[in-house]
Amino acid sequence: MSARGGIDLGGTKIQAVVVNGRGTVIGDARHQTPANGGPPAVTAEMAAALGEAAAAAGVETSSLVSVGVGSPGVIDAAAGTVASARNLNDWIEPFPLAAELSKAVGGAPVSLGNDVSVATDAEFKLGAGKPYKSVLGVFWGTGVGGGIVLNGKPWNGRGAAAEIGHIVVKKDGARCPCGREGCLEAYAGRGSMEAKARREAEQGRKTDLFKIMEKKGRTRLTSGVWAKAIDDGDELAIELVDRAISYLGAGIGSAVNLLDPEAVVIGGGLGVRFGQPYVERIRQAMMPHVFADERPPEVLLAALGDLGGATGAALLRPERPKPARRSVGDGARSRARR
Amino acid sequence: MSARGGIDLGGTKIQAVVVNGRGTVIGDARHQTPANGGPPAVTAEMAAALGEAAAAAGVETSSLVSVGVGSPGVIDAAAGTVASARNLNDWIEPFPLAAELSKAVGGAPVSLGNDVSVATDAEFKLGAGKPYKSVLGVFWGTGVGGGIVLNGKPWNGRGAAAEIGHIVVKKDGARCPCGREGCLEAYAGRGSMEAKARREAEQGRKTDLFKIMEKKGRTRLTSGVWAKAIDDGDELAIELVDRAISYLGAGIGSAVNLLDPEAVVIGGGLGVRFGQPYVERIRQAMMPHVFADERPPEVLLAALGDLGGATGAALLRPERPKPARRSVGDGARSRARR
Repeated sequence: MSARGGIDLGGTKIQAVVVNGRGTVIGDARHQTPANGGPPAVTAEMAAALGEAAAAAGVETSSLVSVGVGSPGVIDAAAGTVASARNLNDWIEPFPLAAELSKAVGGAPVSLGNDVSVATDAEFKLGAGKPYKSVLGVFWGTGVGGGIVLNGKPWNGRGAAAEIGHIVVKKDGARCPCGREGCLEAYAGRGSMEAKARREAEQGRKTDLFKIMEKKGRTRLTSGVWAKAIDDGDELAIELVDRAISYLGAGIGSAVNLLDPEAVVIGGGLGVRFGQPYVERIRQAMMPHVFADERPPEVLLAALGDLGGATGAALLRPERPKPARRSVGDGARSRARR
Repeated sequence: MSARGGIDLGGTKIQAVVVNGRGTVIGDARHQTPANGGPPAVTAEMAAALGEAAAAAGVETSSLVSVGVGSPGVIDAAAGTVASARNLNDWIEPFPLAAELSKAVGGAPVSLGNDVSVATDAEFKLGAGKPYKSVLGVFWGTGVGGGIVLNGKPWNGRGAAAEIGHIVVKKDGARCPCGREGCLEAYAGRGSMEAKARREAEQGRKTDLFKIMEKKGRTRLTSGVWAKAIDDGDELAIELVDRAISYLGAGIGSAVNLLDPEAVVIGGGLGVRFGQPYVERIRQAMMPHVFADERPPEVLLAALGDLGGATGAALLRPERPKPARRSVGDGARSRARR
């Protein structure tokens, strides 16, 4: 049996999968991320979600060859710790997630990776990026994350590459959740879009966004809330999504001018929810900014959908001892994010 | 004897060097680029400049192991042609530069490369980028060119990567010479800066920029003209250079967020002319945009100065036959530029 486990740890959801030797999902489960109890509560919930996915796949978690986690925050894969995961409850100091989760799932070895890097890797190896050697992954969700594969290999720089959400699309522009000005995420991140919608609503702008949110029993403008508002013809929602798309076009165009990849894969909560028609709109918004526009990259919808992050995590392999000369933060091994 | 020739073909200048086996310049010469006569006149002038450099080095051009050319325009290195070199006189159709120049210099084999790519390669192998494995080259001149080295190898994408001048720094912003809006080059390219200065002067803004230009016998605002105007405290010149620097900071910050290189090397006509104090100003303008600002890249002045492009060209090796599966435009071999 060569089943592996993968967990995508998000601020609102924990997505777990079990994949077979070919990377095909044979069981999956989704839990809410605990809003209280800090890292131990989150770890317990991850184990529970993985247990459910394993049960669906007909295996024991203890028999999994490996368990990978795609995590936000600052990951030290060698040490097996996650720190500064600011959209998780009370998770600032380094927490030994690999060791604690391994215990909680019956001893399977746990590897940690950056959430967006593993999702890009999954799309590259198994999803929309499969036919290509050089791929830019763009994950349009609460923030705007990126992943880069060049000549078949992930490019992580010194551990902080692919921050497409923090490309400057408008110098002296809107304030980004990261504290800087004019970043792509300040216009296109779902968090920024929600903040802008709230400001507009407070100033008397008519919108059903927040009514839809309440009706759905949500406390945030989720991708589903945005989708419903757009279906209903809500003007503010349409305007803010149009704006996000136009800035995504500029930011992705910039990245294409720098990297000249064969393909751009659009994923993330909003990307997956809105689907192909919006990927086409993003492509159209990108084209006016592409320098080599006689030969633009393909722009494709992520093929693994909501399961991409967890599937990519399942592809993580247990860390091997590193040669001493390897610099700290090399590869995807330690990466600071929000 | 292992002397090699290198020529940097620019819109205003032809810079030729002869280097020894270690890449050290042992002879150099600079000629004006002919403004008439099209490709044949330019080729003859390149041969003359190389002859002068060879004479200074005490060698015959016919004895050179190889001659490399860093060229603007669309280069087909395999075919040995250059097309669409729009800042050269009457050079739109593909011209067999490699064959014609080889004839004119007594038979030495001629290789063609992209001007900015070869300059980056020179800084990486012999200049300021030597201690690093991943380098972003930024060439601040008439336009803003870029070159990327990742893990010790040039990254050219499908032939059109590293177009840092066409990163969007201000969506819906100033018109770029490339026809697009809001590109870095629209704010920081010397061509755009001159156009803006002319518009301001026509609208009655006081400036000595054009007087200095005439006094120097120039028809364009060269780097020397800008430097003199700034030394004289010309307010418009100071303002436009400040503006260029602030946009360079945003554009380079974006590229750093995407690539996370170890070092950024600043070259080009303006970069080299303004020197270290301005490199420091560019670094300061970049920092507010760098996401992983606890570990920013080094920002360094190009060490090879005006000779970097020609030295990099001298490092070019004659083209080997390509395997059939290699895609057209792979590597630095065919690259569209202005």
